[in-house]
Amino acid sequence: MTFDAARPDGDNDSLKSAISPDGQPTSGERYRVPARCGVAVRLKAQQIIEVQNTHGTQVCDFWAFCEPDTGEFLSMAHTRTSLQSVFPAVGDALVSNIRRPMFEIISDTSPGVHDTLMSCCDSNRYRILGCTEYHDNCTDNLRMALMAIGLKAPAIPDPFNLWMNIPIAADGATSFEPTVSAPSDTIRMKALCDVVAVMSACPQDMNPINGVGCSPTELHFQVID
Amino acid sequence: MTFDAARPDGDNDSLKSAISPDGQPTSGERYRVPARCGVAVRLKAQQIIEVQNTHGTQVCDFWAFCEPDTGEFLSMAHTRTSLQSVFPAVGDALVSNIRRPMFEIISDTSPGVHDTLMSCCDSNRYRILGCTEYHDNCTDNLRMALMAIGLKAPAIPDPFNLWMNIPIAADGATSFEPTVSAPSDTIRMKALCDVVAVMSACPQDMNPINGVGCSPTELHFQVID
Repeated sequence: MTFDAARPDGDNDSLKSAISPDGQPTSGERYRVPARCGVAVRLKAQQIIEVQNTHGTQVCDFWAFCEPDTGEFLSMAHTRTSLQSVFPAVGDALVSNIRRPMFEIISDTSPGVHDTLMSCCDSNRYRILGCTEYHDNCTDNLRMALMAIGLKAPAIPDPFNLWMNIPIAADGATSFEPTVSAPSDTIRMKALCDVVAVMSACPQDMNPINGVGCSPTELHFQVID
Repeated sequence: MTFDAARPDGDNDSLKSAISPDGQPTSGERYRVPARCGVAVRLKAQQIIEVQNTHGTQVCDFWAFCEPDTGEFLSMAHTRTSLQSVFPAVGDALVSNIRRPMFEIISDTSPGVHDTLMSCCDSNRYRILGCTEYHDNCTDNLRMALMAIGLKAPAIPDPFNLWMNIPIAADGATSFEPTVSAPSDTIRMKALCDVVAVMSACPQDMNPINGVGCSPTELHFQVID
């Protein structure tokens, strides 16, 4: 079986969680990303997306594809190279795979601990961790969130993992630690071009990345003109 | 103009540097990656590729695609997640975008300083650095090395940057430092599945990543049964 970026390995309610048939938001309306699911939203250049860590312990895998050419997408490797840092912060631009600025981080009420290093979880990740049945995963959530608004994932870019706490030791070792964010923490990012963004409330419950209770929860977001 | 992973933004001798019409190597033969160029080579599972830093100061961008399905390729983000480290070392497996082990690092005569964080340079990178004309770049070298053996790049994966010295400070800041390798240092990687690998002798001459002289040079490699 050949690799198909668009095809999920299983399914969940991400298929039924679209905010509108085409992902167009109503400005100022509060939307929910259900626990363990993904949701897509379209943004016009200069619109702001505010993502809220509703309960404080939840990681949000975040991706964005340019429109109309979704072959251009947010790239963590190009962003690290541009910023000369692995930790984007307020005032920084996040860039695409052809180095175009796609977002500016304009505010962040959390301590600013976000991850650019880890791949999004997928069905193989959970199989390797010991799961014998299908486990919700961010890769499939990305695929299904796009399907729910009539799009196909053109690729599986590495995500911007909001609130994901991955310390890097001096020898390069990384670890999966609980979030350091608080309930209702928000990050605001201004789109610098037209995009379709996808958020997944990471369903990882086999390490404490979504809190010591290993209980993934919901997230919320809104689009601000 | 839409993004086309396969289409170079310019050209150089990578188009004329194929080791054979289809990239099949002769086992034990020493091949050259010309300075500022890329070369592709096919490996069967269990074959070993030895890459040599001929003059000690040269970074080698390294990619690999599975065969026959090149939609599966070596992924640095999945490798970091698997290893829980940003620095792969001898004994470690490098994995694909679906987490299949593709290579094992079996030896390394250098101090083991390699990079998994930085994107491959591209024409936009040099434009941003101030170039007003086409500059050789690893992304185009990847594309042309594959074209030279009759293939098209299906994607531009983040490379395994052999000998590239990117220290990470405690605050996450990175810097572009000269290699710490010595002339004739070699790294050997055993293929764990059939792949087409590509090496680019990075043409970066606007920072000291290829030595304080900023003079990119050649590399050599061989395939060992």
